[in-house]
Amino acid sequence: MIRDIPEISLQRLPVYLNYLKSLPEGDKYISSGTIAAALGMGEVLVRKDLAYTSSSGRPKVGYVRAELIAALEEYLGCDKKRNAVLVGVGGLGSALLAYGGFAKYGIDIVEAFDSDPSKAGTRVGGKPVGGDGDIPAAVERSGAALAIVAVPASAAQQVCDVLVSAGIKGILNFAPVQLRAPESVVVRNIDVGASLAILASLL
Amino acid sequence: MIRDIPEISLQRLPVYLNYLKSLPEGDKYISSGTIAAALGMGEVLVRKDLAYTSSSGRPKVGYVRAELIAALEEYLGCDKKRNAVLVGVGGLGSALLAYGGFAKYGIDIVEAFDSDPSKAGTRVGGKPVGGDGDIPAAVERSGAALAIVAVPASAAQQVCDVLVSAGIKGILNFAPVQLRAPESVVVRNIDVGASLAILASLL
Repeated sequence: MIRDIPEISLQRLPVYLNYLKSLPEGDKYISSGTIAAALGMGEVLVRKDLAYTSSSGRPKVGYVRAELIAALEEYLGCDKKRNAVLVGVGGLGSALLAYGGFAKYGIDIVEAFDSDPSKAGTRVGGKPVGGDGDIPAAVERSGAALAIVAVPASAAQQVCDVLVSAGIKGILNFAPVQLRAPESVVVRNIDVGASLAILASLL
Repeated sequence: MIRDIPEISLQRLPVYLNYLKSLPEGDKYISSGTIAAALGMGEVLVRKDLAYTSSSGRPKVGYVRAELIAALEEYLGCDKKRNAVLVGVGGLGSALLAYGGFAKYGIDIVEAFDSDPSKAGTRVGGKPVGGDGDIPAAVERSGAALAIVAVPASAAQQVCDVLVSAGIKGILNFAPVQLRAPESVVVRNIDVGASLAILASLL
Protein backbone atom coordinates (compact mmCIF):
# COMPACT_ATOMS: atom_id res chain seq x y z
CA MET A 1 0.00 0.00 0.00
CA ILE A 2 1.71 3.22 -1.09
CA ARG A 3 0.01 6.45 -0.07
CA ASP A 4 1.41 9.85 0.59
CA ILE A 5 0.02 10.35 4.07
CA PRO A 6 2.77 11.52 6.43
CA GLU A 7 3.41 8.91 9.13
CA ILE A 8 2.62 11.48 11.80
CA SER A 9 -0.89 11.88 10.36
CA LEU A 10 -1.25 8.13 9.99
CA GLN A 11 -0.44 7.76 13.70
CA ARG A 12 -3.37 10.00 14.59
CA LEU A 13 -5.97 8.05 12.59
CA PRO A 14 -6.45 5.39 15.29
CA VAL A 15 -6.92 8.20 17.82
CA TYR A 16 -9.79 9.64 15.76
CA LEU A 17 -11.21 6.16 15.26
CA ASN A 18 -11.18 5.34 18.99
CA TYR A 19 -12.78 8.67 19.80
CA LEU A 20 -15.54 8.35 17.19
CA LYS A 21 -16.34 4.81 18.32
CA SER A 22 -16.59 5.98 21.94
CA LEU A 23 -19.44 8.40 21.15
CA PRO A 24 -23.10 7.50 21.79
CA GLU A 25 -24.76 5.62 18.91
CA GLY A 26 -27.34 8.40 18.49
CA ASP A 27 -24.80 11.02 17.35
CA LYS A 28 -25.22 11.00 13.59
CA TYR A 29 -23.03 13.97 12.65
CA ILE A 30 -19.78 15.26 14.04
CA SER A 31 -17.83 18.37 13.11
CA SER A 32 -14.06 18.70 12.86
CA GLY A 33 -14.32 21.38 15.55
CA THR A 34 -15.95 18.96 18.00
CA ILE A 35 -13.30 16.33 17.28
CA ALA A 36 -10.51 18.87 17.66
CA ALA A 37 -11.85 20.17 20.99
CA ALA A 38 -12.35 16.67 22.41
CA LEU A 39 -8.85 15.56 21.48
CA GLY A 40 -7.10 18.84 22.33
CA MET A 41 -5.92 19.32 18.74
CA GLY A 42 -6.16 22.08 16.17
CA GLU A 43 -9.19 21.98 13.87
CA VAL A 44 -7.15 22.58 10.71
CA LEU A 45 -4.93 19.62 11.57
CA VAL A 46 -7.95 17.38 12.16
CA ARG A 47 -9.43 18.36 8.82
CA LYS A 48 -6.14 17.79 7.03
CA ASP A 49 -5.68 14.36 8.62
CA LEU A 50 -9.22 13.25 7.83
CA ALA A 51 -8.89 14.46 4.23
CA TYR A 52 -6.59 11.48 3.64
CA THR A 53 -9.56 9.18 4.10
CA SER A 54 -12.43 8.77 1.63
CA SER A 55 -14.91 10.53 3.94
CA SER A 56 -15.61 14.19 3.44
CA GLY A 57 -17.22 16.66 5.79
CA ARG A 58 -20.29 18.61 4.73
CA PRO A 59 -20.72 22.32 5.33
CA LYS A 60 -22.58 23.13 8.57
CA VAL A 61 -23.20 19.52 9.73
CA GLY A 62 -19.72 18.02 9.48
CA TYR A 63 -19.00 14.35 8.92
CA VAL A 64 -21.48 11.51 9.07
CA ARG A 65 -19.98 9.65 12.02
CA ALA A 66 -20.64 6.13 10.70
CA GLU A 67 -19.15 7.04 7.31
CA LEU A 68 -16.06 8.53 8.91
CA ILE A 69 -15.58 5.45 11.10
CA ALA A 70 -15.92 3.22 8.03
CA ALA A 71 -13.45 5.38 6.08
CA LEU A 72 -10.89 5.31 8.89
CA GLU A 73 -11.28 1.56 9.29
CA GLU A 74 -10.86 1.09 5.56
CA TYR A 75 -7.78 3.31 5.52
CA LEU A 76 -6.22 1.40 8.42
CA GLY A 77 -7.02 -1.91 6.76
CA CYS A 78 -9.27 -3.11 9.58
CA ASP A 79 -11.47 -4.85 7.02
CA LYS A 80 -8.57 -6.98 5.77
CA LYS A 81 -7.46 -9.97 7.80
CA ARG A 82 -3.71 -9.84 8.44
CA ASN A 83 -1.67 -12.44 10.23
CA ALA A 84 1.18 -11.73 12.62
CA VAL A 85 3.60 -13.84 14.62
CA LEU A 86 5.19 -13.05 17.97
CA VAL A 87 8.64 -14.04 19.20
CA GLY A 88 9.48 -14.09 22.90
CA VAL A 89 6.83 -15.53 25.21
CA GLY A 90 8.04 -13.91 28.44
CA GLY A 91 5.97 -11.54 30.59
CA LEU A 92 5.44 -8.92 27.90
CA GLY A 93 5.01 -11.45 25.07
CA SER A 94 2.43 -13.38 27.09
CA ALA A 95 0.54 -10.17 27.87
CA LEU A 96 0.51 -9.24 24.18
CA LEU A 97 -0.76 -12.71 23.22
CA ALA A 98 -3.67 -12.28 25.62
CA TYR A 99 -4.30 -8.67 24.51
CA GLY A 100 -7.58 -8.20 22.67
CA GLY A 101 -6.67 -4.92 20.97
CA PHE A 102 -5.33 -6.27 17.67
CA ALA A 103 -8.58 -7.81 16.42
CA LYS A 104 -10.30 -4.47 15.84
CA TYR A 105 -7.57 -3.68 13.31
CA GLY A 106 -8.08 -7.00 11.55
CA ILE A 107 -4.79 -8.34 12.89
CA ASP A 108 -4.50 -11.85 14.30
CA ILE A 109 -1.41 -13.17 16.07
CA VAL A 110 -1.55 -16.69 14.72
CA GLU A 111 1.48 -18.22 16.40
CA ALA A 112 4.20 -17.42 18.92
CA PHE A 113 7.75 -18.69 19.38
CA ASP A 114 10.21 -18.94 22.21
CA SER A 115 13.75 -20.22 22.49
CA ASP A 116 12.88 -22.02 25.74
CA PRO A 117 12.09 -25.62 24.68
CA SER A 118 9.79 -26.10 27.69
CA LYS A 119 7.40 -23.54 26.19
CA ALA A 120 7.15 -25.22 22.77
CA GLY A 121 3.90 -27.08 22.33
CA THR A 122 2.04 -25.01 24.93
CA ARG A 123 -0.64 -22.37 24.33
CA VAL A 124 -0.42 -18.86 25.75
CA GLY A 125 -3.34 -16.45 25.48
CA GLY A 126 -4.98 -19.12 23.33
CA LYS A 127 -2.14 -19.05 20.77
CA PRO A 128 0.12 -22.01 19.94
CA VAL A 129 3.76 -21.60 20.94
CA GLY A 130 6.54 -23.16 18.89
CA GLY A 131 10.32 -23.18 19.10
CA ASP A 132 12.42 -20.56 17.28
CA GLY A 133 13.28 -23.18 14.67
CA ASP A 134 9.62 -23.34 13.65
CA ILE A 135 9.52 -19.69 12.55
CA PRO A 136 10.26 -20.09 8.81
CA ALA A 137 7.67 -22.83 8.24
CA ALA A 138 5.03 -21.03 10.30
CA VAL A 139 5.54 -17.72 8.49
CA GLU A 140 5.24 -19.45 5.13
CA ARG A 141 2.15 -21.44 6.18
CA SER A 142 0.30 -18.47 7.68
CA GLY A 143 1.41 -15.88 5.14
CA ALA A 144 2.17 -13.55 8.07
CA ALA A 145 3.91 -10.33 6.99
CA LEU A 146 3.97 -8.83 10.50
CA ALA A 147 5.99 -9.84 13.54
CA ILE A 148 6.23 -8.66 17.13
CA VAL A 149 9.64 -9.02 18.77
CA ALA A 150 9.39 -9.30 22.57
CA VAL A 151 12.70 -11.01 23.35
CA PRO A 152 15.54 -9.55 25.49
CA ALA A 153 17.79 -6.98 23.78
CA SER A 154 20.65 -9.48 23.51
CA ALA A 155 18.59 -11.87 21.37
CA ALA A 156 16.64 -9.34 19.29
CA GLN A 157 18.97 -8.93 16.30
CA GLN A 158 19.25 -12.67 15.75
CA VAL A 159 15.47 -13.04 15.94
CA CYS A 160 15.11 -10.13 13.52
CA ASP A 161 17.43 -11.84 11.03
CA VAL A 162 15.42 -15.07 11.23
CA LEU A 163 12.15 -13.18 10.72
CA VAL A 164 13.50 -11.27 7.73
CA SER A 165 14.81 -14.48 6.13
CA ALA A 166 11.41 -16.04 6.71
CA GLY A 167 9.76 -13.27 4.69
CA ILE A 168 8.43 -10.93 7.39
CA LYS A 169 7.97 -7.39 6.05
CA GLY A 170 7.10 -5.42 9.18
CA ILE A 171 8.49 -5.74 12.71
CA LEU A 172 7.18 -4.14 15.88
CA ASN A 173 10.16 -4.33 18.22
CA PHE A 174 9.82 -4.07 22.00
CA ALA A 175 13.50 -4.85 22.74
CA PRO A 176 15.48 -1.74 23.70
CA VAL A 177 17.89 -2.07 20.79
CA GLN A 178 18.01 -0.69 17.26
CA LEU A 179 17.47 -3.58 14.82
CA ARG A 180 19.33 -3.75 11.51
CA ALA A 181 17.06 -4.92 8.69
CA PRO A 182 16.98 -4.49 4.91
CA GLU A 183 15.33 -1.29 3.67
CA SER A 184 12.40 -3.28 2.34
CA VAL A 185 11.47 -4.26 5.91
CA VAL A 186 9.69 -1.68 8.09
CA VAL A 187 10.82 -1.69 11.73
CA ARG A 188 9.09 0.35 14.41
CA ASN A 189 10.07 0.35 18.08
CA ILE A 190 8.17 0.54 21.34
CA ASP A 191 10.60 1.05 24.22
CA VAL A 192 8.46 1.28 27.33
CA GLY A 193 11.34 2.17 29.66
CA ALA A 194 12.54 4.94 27.35
CA SER A 195 8.99 6.24 26.91
CA LEU A 196 8.59 6.66 30.65
CA ALA A 197 12.03 8.30 30.94
CA ILE A 198 11.15 10.76 28.15
CA LEU A 199 7.86 11.54 29.85
CA ALA A 200 9.74 12.13 33.12
CA SER A 201 12.11 14.58 31.47
CA LEU A 202 9.17 16.57 30.10
CA LEU A 203 7.87 17.29 33.61
CA MET B 1 12.95 20.71 33.82
CA ILE B 2 12.46 23.17 30.97
CA ARG B 3 14.76 22.78 28.00
CA ASP B 4 14.29 23.61 24.39
CA ILE B 5 15.04 20.20 22.93
CA PRO B 6 12.33 19.19 20.46
CA GLU B 7 10.47 16.11 21.70
CA ILE B 8 11.42 14.25 18.52
CA SER B 9 15.11 14.71 19.38
CA LEU B 10 14.48 13.77 23.00
CA GLN B 11 12.89 10.52 21.80
CA ARG B 12 16.10 9.60 19.99
CA LEU B 13 18.39 10.08 23.01
CA PRO B 14 17.58 6.65 24.53
CA VAL B 15 18.31 5.10 21.13
CA TYR B 16 21.81 6.61 21.13
CA LEU B 17 22.27 5.59 24.75
CA ASN B 18 21.30 1.96 24.12
CA TYR B 19 23.57 1.81 21.09
CA LEU B 20 26.58 3.30 22.89
CA LYS B 21 26.11 0.95 25.83
CA SER B 22 25.97 -2.04 23.47
CA LEU B 23 29.49 -1.36 22.12
CA PRO B 24 32.54 -3.26 23.40
CA GLU B 25 34.13 -1.69 26.49
CA GLY B 26 37.41 -1.18 24.61
CA ASP B 27 35.97 1.40 22.18
CA LYS B 28 37.10 4.68 23.67
CA TYR B 29 36.07 7.08 20.90
CA ILE B 30 33.10 7.11 18.60
CA SER B 31 32.31 9.48 15.74
CA SER B 32 28.92 10.88 14.80
CA GLY B 33 29.40 9.18 11.42
CA THR B 34 29.76 5.76 13.03
CA ILE B 35 26.69 6.33 15.19
CA ALA B 36 24.70 7.56 12.19
CA ALA B 37 25.68 4.57 10.03
CA ALA B 38 24.91 2.06 12.80
CA LEU B 39 21.47 3.52 13.46
CA GLY B 40 20.57 4.25 9.84
CA MET B 41 20.29 7.98 10.48
CA GLY B 42 21.79 11.12 8.97
CA GLU B 43 25.05 12.33 10.49
CA VAL B 44 23.92 15.96 10.72
CA LEU B 45 20.84 14.88 12.66
CA VAL B 46 22.94 12.82 15.06
CA ARG B 47 25.26 15.74 15.70
CA LYS B 48 22.33 18.10 16.24
CA ASP B 49 20.65 15.73 18.68
CA LEU B 50 23.82 15.12 20.67
CA ALA B 51 24.54 18.85 20.84
CA TYR B 52 21.65 19.10 23.32
CA THR B 53 23.72 17.13 25.81
CA SER B 54 26.78 18.43 27.64
CA SER B 55 29.17 16.20 25.68
CA SER B 56 30.95 17.61 22.67
CA GLY B 57 32.67 15.78 19.88
CA ARG B 58 36.33 16.48 19.09
CA PRO B 59 37.62 16.97 15.56
CA LYS B 60 38.98 13.77 13.98
CA VAL B 61 38.34 11.42 16.96
CA GLY B 62 34.71 12.16 17.75
CA TYR B 63 33.11 11.71 21.15
CA VAL B 64 34.62 10.00 24.16
CA ARG B 65 32.12 7.17 24.48
CA ALA B 66 32.02 7.09 28.30
CA GLU B 67 31.52 10.87 28.43
CA LEU B 68 28.74 10.73 25.88
CA ILE B 69 27.00 7.93 27.79
CA ALA B 70 27.27 9.93 31.01
CA ALA B 71 25.96 13.06 29.30
CA LEU B 72 22.98 11.20 27.81
CA GLU B 73 22.22 9.57 31.16
CA GLU B 74 22.40 12.91 32.88
CA TYR B 75 20.13 14.51 30.28
CA LEU B 76 17.58 11.71 30.65
CA GLY B 77 17.73 11.98 34.43
CA CYS B 78 18.98 8.39 34.91
CA ASP B 79 21.05 9.57 37.88
CA LYS B 80 17.97 10.84 39.71
CA LYS B 81 15.69 8.38 41.45
CA ARG B 82 12.09 8.91 40.38
CA ASN B 83 9.09 7.04 41.68
CA ALA B 84 6.15 5.90 39.62
CA VAL B 85 2.89 4.10 40.31
CA LEU B 86 0.95 1.76 38.05
CA VAL B 87 -2.80 1.29 37.82
CA GLY B 88 -4.32 -1.85 36.33
CA VAL B 89 -2.69 -5.13 37.29
CA GLY B 90 -4.00 -7.22 34.39
CA GLY B 91 -1.83 -9.01 31.86
CA LEU B 92 -0.06 -5.91 30.56
CA GLY B 93 0.19 -4.24 33.98
CA SER B 94 1.68 -7.39 35.49
CA ALA B 95 4.20 -7.64 32.66
CA LEU B 96 5.20 -4.01 33.20
CA LEU B 97 5.62 -4.58 36.95
CA ALA B 98 8.01 -7.44 36.21
CA TYR B 99 9.82 -5.50 33.46
CA GLY B 100 13.38 -4.57 34.34
CA GLY B 101 13.79 -1.76 31.82
CA PHE B 102 12.79 1.19 34.02
CA ALA B 103 15.67 0.92 36.50
CA LYS B 104 18.33 2.01 34.01
CA TYR B 105 16.48 5.32 33.70
CA GLY B 106 16.37 5.74 37.47
CA ILE B 107 12.64 5.02 37.58
CA ASP B 108 11.12 2.73 40.18
CA ILE B 109 7.50 1.58 40.13
CA VAL B 110 6.91 1.67 43.86
CA GLU B 111 3.31 0.52 44.04
CA ALA B 112 0.48 -0.76 41.87
CA PHE B 113 -3.29 -0.57 42.16
CA ASP B 114 -6.24 -2.53 40.86
CA SER B 115 -10.00 -2.19 41.23
CA ASP B 116 -10.30 -5.94 41.82
CA PRO B 117 -10.36 -6.33 45.64
CA SER B 118 -8.90 -9.85 45.39
CA LYS B 119 -5.65 -8.36 44.09
CA ALA B 120 -5.23 -5.85 46.94
CA GLY B 121 -2.60 -6.93 49.42
CA THR B 122 -0.79 -9.19 46.93
CA ARG B 123 2.59 -8.57 45.28
CA VAL B 124 3.08 -8.69 41.50
CA GLY B 125 6.56 -8.51 39.99
CA GLY B 126 7.78 -7.85 43.53
CA LYS B 127 5.63 -4.71 43.88
CA PRO B 128 2.85 -4.26 46.43
CA VAL B 129 -0.67 -4.02 44.99
CA GLY B 130 -3.32 -1.84 46.63
CA GLY B 131 -6.93 -0.98 45.83
CA ASP B 132 -7.83 2.05 43.72
CA GLY B 133 -8.85 3.87 46.90
CA ASP B 134 -5.26 3.71 48.14
CA ILE B 135 -3.94 5.82 45.25
CA PRO B 136 -4.02 9.30 46.86
CA ALA B 137 -2.23 8.25 50.04
CA ALA B 138 0.38 6.19 48.16
CA VAL B 139 1.17 9.01 45.73
CA GLU B 140 1.61 11.42 48.61
CA ARG B 141 3.75 9.00 50.62
CA SER B 142 6.04 8.06 47.72
CA GLY B 143 6.20 11.47 46.11
CA ALA B 144 5.58 9.75 42.77
CA ALA B 145 5.06 12.20 39.90
CA LEU B 146 4.74 9.51 37.22
CA ALA B 147 1.97 7.00 36.62
CA ILE B 148 1.36 4.18 34.17
CA VAL B 149 -2.25 3.52 33.22
CA ALA B 150 -2.84 -0.07 32.12
CA VAL B 151 -6.58 -0.40 32.74
CA PRO B 152 -9.25 -1.09 30.07
CA ALA B 153 -10.32 1.87 27.94
CA SER B 154 -13.66 2.15 29.74
CA ALA B 155 -11.97 2.78 33.11
CA ALA B 156 -9.04 4.91 31.96
CA GLN B 157 -10.53 8.41 32.25
CA GLN B 158 -11.74 7.82 35.79
CA VAL B 159 -8.32 6.48 36.79
CA CYS B 160 -6.69 9.47 35.12
CA ASP B 161 -8.88 11.86 37.14
CA VAL B 162 -7.93 10.12 40.40
CA LEU B 163 -4.22 10.26 39.51
CA VAL B 164 -4.38 13.94 38.61
CA SER B 165 -6.20 14.77 41.87
CA ALA B 166 -3.55 12.81 43.74
CA GLY B 167 -0.83 15.02 42.29
CA ILE B 168 0.55 12.92 39.42
CA LYS B 169 2.24 15.12 36.78
CA GLY B 170 3.02 12.64 34.00
CA ILE B 171 0.92 9.73 32.72
CA LEU B 172 1.98 6.98 30.33
CA ASN B 173 -1.33 5.63 29.07
CA PHE B 174 -1.69 2.18 27.49
CA ALA B 175 -5.49 2.30 27.22
CA PRO B 176 -6.66 2.96 23.64
CA VAL B 177 -8.46 6.16 24.56
CA GLN B 178 -7.52 9.83 24.59
CA LEU B 179 -7.34 10.99 28.22
CA ARG B 180 -8.49 14.46 29.25
CA ALA B 181 -6.14 16.03 31.79
CA PRO B 182 -5.21 19.58 32.83
CA GLU B 183 -2.52 21.24 30.70
CA SER B 184 -0.05 21.00 33.57
CA VAL B 185 -0.15 17.20 33.31
CA VAL B 186 1.82 15.52 30.51
CA VAL B 187 0.06 12.53 28.96
CA ARG B 188 1.72 10.22 26.44
CA ASN B 189 0.11 7.18 24.88
CA ILE B 190 1.30 3.76 23.87
CA ASP B 191 -1.40 1.99 21.87
CA VAL B 192 0.07 -1.36 20.92
CA GLY B 193 -2.84 -2.39 18.69
CA ALA B 194 -2.75 0.89 16.79
CA SER B 195 1.04 0.71 16.45
CA LEU B 196 0.81 -2.68 14.77
CA ALA B 197 -2.02 -1.46 12.51
CA ILE B 198 0.04 1.58 11.48
CA LEU B 199 3.01 -0.64 10.77
CA ALA B 200 0.78 -2.89 8.67
CA SER B 201 -0.44 0.03 6.60
CA LEU B 202 3.15 1.07 5.86
CA LEU B 203 3.89 -2.27 4.15
